[in-house]
Amino acid sequence: MKQVAIIGYGPAGITAGIYLKRNNIDSIIIGKDLGALDGYTDLVENYYGFAEPIPGKDLIANGVKQAKRLGIQVITDSVISLKEIEGGFQIGTAKHKYEAKTVLLATGKTRTTINKPGFIKYRGKGISMCATCDGYFYRRKKIAVVGCGAYMLHELEYLNRMSPDVTIFTDGNPFHEEVSNKVVTEPIISFTGTDKVTHIETEHGKYDVDGIFIALGIPSSIEFASQLGVIVEKNNLLVNENYETNVPGLFAAGDIIGGKLQIAKAVYDGMMVADSIYKYLNKK
Amino acid sequence: MKQVAIIGYGPAGITAGIYLKRNNIDSIIIGKDLGALDGYTDLVENYYGFAEPIPGKDLIANGVKQAKRLGIQVITDSVISLKEIEGGFQIGTAKHKYEAKTVLLATGKTRTTINKPGFIKYRGKGISMCATCDGYFYRRKKIAVVGCGAYMLHELEYLNRMSPDVTIFTDGNPFHEEVSNKVVTEPIISFTGTDKVTHIETEHGKYDVDGIFIALGIPSSIEFASQLGVIVEKNNLLVNENYETNVPGLFAAGDIIGGKLQIAKAVYDGMMVADSIYKYLNKK
Repeated sequence: MKQVAIIGYGPAGITAGIYLKRNNIDSIIIGKDLGALDGYTDLVENYYGFAEPIPGKDLIANGVKQAKRLGIQVITDSVISLKEIEGGFQIGTAKHKYEAKTVLLATGKTRTTINKPGFIKYRGKGISMCATCDGYFYRRKKIAVVGCGAYMLHELEYLNRMSPDVTIFTDGNPFHEEVSNKVVTEPIISFTGTDKVTHIETEHGKYDVDGIFIALGIPSSIEFASQLGVIVEKNNLLVNENYETNVPGLFAAGDIIGGKLQIAKAVYDGMMVADSIYKYLNKK
Repeated sequence: MKQVAIIGYGPAGITAGIYLKRNNIDSIIIGKDLGALDGYTDLVENYYGFAEPIPGKDLIANGVKQAKRLGIQVITDSVISLKEIEGGFQIGTAKHKYEAKTVLLATGKTRTTINKPGFIKYRGKGISMCATCDGYFYRRKKIAVVGCGAYMLHELEYLNRMSPDVTIFTDGNPFHEEVSNKVVTEPIISFTGTDKVTHIETEHGKYDVDGIFIALGIPSSIEFASQLGVIVEKNNLLVNENYETNVPGLFAAGDIIGGKLQIAKAVYDGMMVADSIYKYLNKK
């Protein structure tokens, strides 16, 4: 039985592995194929230490290499099940089963894309997946934010700082939050434009926009975490100040626990959760 | 008058500048000449995103380039004074005076080196300045930690995890803390060895060691911060949950506020304090 299984090899998972190793604790890190890392295809400009913007995928690949160089076992596979067993957990992938005393969920959040004509064409040309990353470029402009849940509200708060003209598009979903913004609940038909996006079209309307922010995210491993009875709050796994969920020995870090969806925060989480896991294992 | 003056262009200061810029707030960042960054000459292995270890100085230089590329004003100069003026602060360097509504202290902590024969020769060859960085290489070995204050105790806690054989050398300073470690209070005469350090010599003793950790750090800008009446606790500037000191408009982040002396933590601080400064400026 391993000491620690880390699910997810993004910034939080890899950093946790590195700091655990420095505490003399071996972990196995299991991550999805890089090709699946859809949320990380854009250029990273905010993360400290890179003179030039780095493609998100390259950063993830660097992290995996960094961990391997330090002697940490990193495996590419998809975790499909997680259950409690005597003294720990069993982690199932399509090919194997692993056992570990503790598990760290660090899968990130899938930034759900939107399947509408024009989305692929204008992504990066007026359509963005991250307000904190790109909001600045649309200050005092006409902004649309697409979504209806907690993540949309999180992005909205930031976008409202940038511009007085931010409209919410719920794409057909009901919306009952109190906001001072305009809200369009009609389903979106398409995104249209010239060399960059200029309009959102619905059945009865055509709306001028300078920038569109897609904010439909839902956590990717909420499902199997909830199978274990992990408390989920507003699409985030609920953890205490030690990054431990309500299931003893099951920790979570990074985007999946909410807060700022930024690499700097995921890395910080990874460092801090390593400490907590170390203490948990030594208490036993 | 500028909106924000950031003193220090290490990870915390640069990250704060980047996130402030994304919030549409211009800052000026003033940092010491890179040559003075003594604590950063070693290789960085723990900070996420680099497949190969990166020299600390290169990382700092990357950060400065990153900020400049994003249009942030970065200046190399030594801040020698800081005082409150109507509506903000005046920051004095040898050559200029700057005025800003808010100030972020992000100078880091000077990791004081020790002026004894053998220190330069064996630094990196058994003598280390960072337990979290290098402690792992001395697990179950004979370790010495040199220091007598809060920072030494912080390093000691970590080193005690690595080995049951950690001795404290106070280099002539009195020591009244309760620890279970052996304590040598005699002044250190020299560090000796072969191709790597093997002994600490005092007037009456010669002690076998595998690794020596220097932990004499004191914050570098405590002095002028205390001139403003900033509360200092255990060699750290005291800040509230918004990274604000007891002087309104004066913020601090990174190593200087204590906690983990790690780049990941300084970067996280920088991101978070940017939010606080943004809110402070908008409240006004």
